[in-house]
Amino acid sequence: MEKYLKESSLIIENSIKNELSEINYPTVLKEGISYALLNGGKRLRPILLLMTLELFEINIELGLQYAVAIECIHNYSLVHDDLPALDNDTYRRGQLTVHKKFGEAEAILIGDALLTHAFHILAKEHRDISHNQMIKILQKVTEAAGINGMIGGQFIDVTSGDKKVDLSTLQYIHINKTGKMMKLPIEIGLILANAKQDDIDTMIKFAELLGISFQIKDDILDVEGNFKKLGKTIGKDKNQNKITYPALFGVNESKKILEDKISLAKELIIKKYGVKAEKFVSLCDYMMNRES
Amino acid sequence: MEKYLKESSLIIENSIKNELSEINYPTVLKEGISYALLNGGKRLRPILLLMTLELFEINIELGLQYAVAIECIHNYSLVHDDLPALDNDTYRRGQLTVHKKFGEAEAILIGDALLTHAFHILAKEHRDISHNQMIKILQKVTEAAGINGMIGGQFIDVTSGDKKVDLSTLQYIHINKTGKMMKLPIEIGLILANAKQDDIDTMIKFAELLGISFQIKDDILDVEGNFKKLGKTIGKDKNQNKITYPALFGVNESKKILEDKISLAKELIIKKYGVKAEKFVSLCDYMMNRES
Repeated sequence: MEKYLKESSLIIENSIKNELSEINYPTVLKEGISYALLNGGKRLRPILLLMTLELFEINIELGLQYAVAIECIHNYSLVHDDLPALDNDTYRRGQLTVHKKFGEAEAILIGDALLTHAFHILAKEHRDISHNQMIKILQKVTEAAGINGMIGGQFIDVTSGDKKVDLSTLQYIHINKTGKMMKLPIEIGLILANAKQDDIDTMIKFAELLGISFQIKDDILDVEGNFKKLGKTIGKDKNQNKITYPALFGVNESKKILEDKISLAKELIIKKYGVKAEKFVSLCDYMMNRES
Repeated sequence: MEKYLKESSLIIENSIKNELSEINYPTVLKEGISYALLNGGKRLRPILLLMTLELFEINIELGLQYAVAIECIHNYSLVHDDLPALDNDTYRRGQLTVHKKFGEAEAILIGDALLTHAFHILAKEHRDISHNQMIKILQKVTEAAGINGMIGGQFIDVTSGDKKVDLSTLQYIHINKTGKMMKLPIEIGLILANAKQDDIDTMIKFAELLGISFQIKDDILDVEGNFKKLGKTIGKDKNQNKITYPALFGVNESKKILEDKISLAKELIIKKYGVKAEKFVSLCDYMMNRES
């Protein structure tokens, strides 16, 4: 799995570099965008897209522009998240955050540019993708990244601050802030593959379980993780009184919940696709055991 | 003209309210988005779209969703522009700026939500608009708002700070930061009207002259304007050592340049459309003489 993830990351990074080569000016804006995008991220979201295409035996080349667009959106959200007015983070993946490196005004605009550029890429024509598919994908993207998705979850997370919140608010935040952007690449893959309804049903359920697992694991890593491996400050959630699974259930119970979700996800996909689901099963294990 | 502008603003505001009624949660995010969008703006950009449709005898209903999307993008850019790290403004159109009213983290996210929501609207199906037209419009929008448009211009403007810049940099900023978003509604109108190439050529030239005139007038108002009428702080450009037409040429010469551009724009459109261009001619006069 590690090998597969590395190879896929390389493919995605090449696509990102390719996309960046079309930008010339303003020079510092280009540098900021490159810095934000090429920072050694795990590329989990775009890899999920490529894996979905492979599952349905579609050439992954079809998904590359969408993979880059997803990374633009994901990384814009990180750049803005890290700002002094929000998480006020100094490091991300062991590097200075964008506003520490380029300045605060610049970081706001670099984030804005990344988000807008995602839609620039999404609106590009592709010989083998119909306008109908393009519009459907755009609708999924704006849903996942928008008010009923990532921004909504992020807004509640940020404004909940020191308030004690309940499990349903925690779940709202997880589903919207992280979950929908984890589900998005699988949804895009299904559209590109013209998947049938029963495939869509299974894969969406799988994606939702994976998304929630990812967030629980993130919460656990913030308690137990290692700065060097994680590349960012540990214990921030607790210091900021963030609502997390460990805060609500304790670390041990959170780990049990994580294991249950991952088991369910694996069962679901093995039952439907058997050996063809091998990579997704490995990804589940990787997600549960990752240290960064 | 004043009457026409008022009536059109009302139509656009109703479309905005209509669009907002689909948002339910998070409540404060919805409030922030409404506050930013319904702040008594001049609605010049969406009105240009409706005027273009009228010129080509197309039902303006066809443009309403795009009018709202343009306002979302325009207002996201204002919300982020006003932030402490950028222009650090307290008032806009006589009201507190979004970050002064809702907080800084909230304002960043409200801006992000407005930008994303613009694309949500742009990706909505409309019975009388083809997928082909939708994609073309999306491409124009990402061009106008993106790295080779508004964001690029804004980035150079912000990072030029105290540096002395030359006329070509000033023009780059004007064309990209303001000009392309002023041209965009006319471009969208032309796509919706399936306009012929000679119409496109004339209207684009007209739009470019209008865009640059708008910015020169803005610069002059920052020197000579009236806080009460303008609803924002006067003299900010000079205090921040911003590059402007008055700074480079003086106020009188800037007024002469403005008059020349407006004359050219009027000539162009009268020659092509005669009396049918009446509203555009009035708009030119309005632009030159506006006090806010």
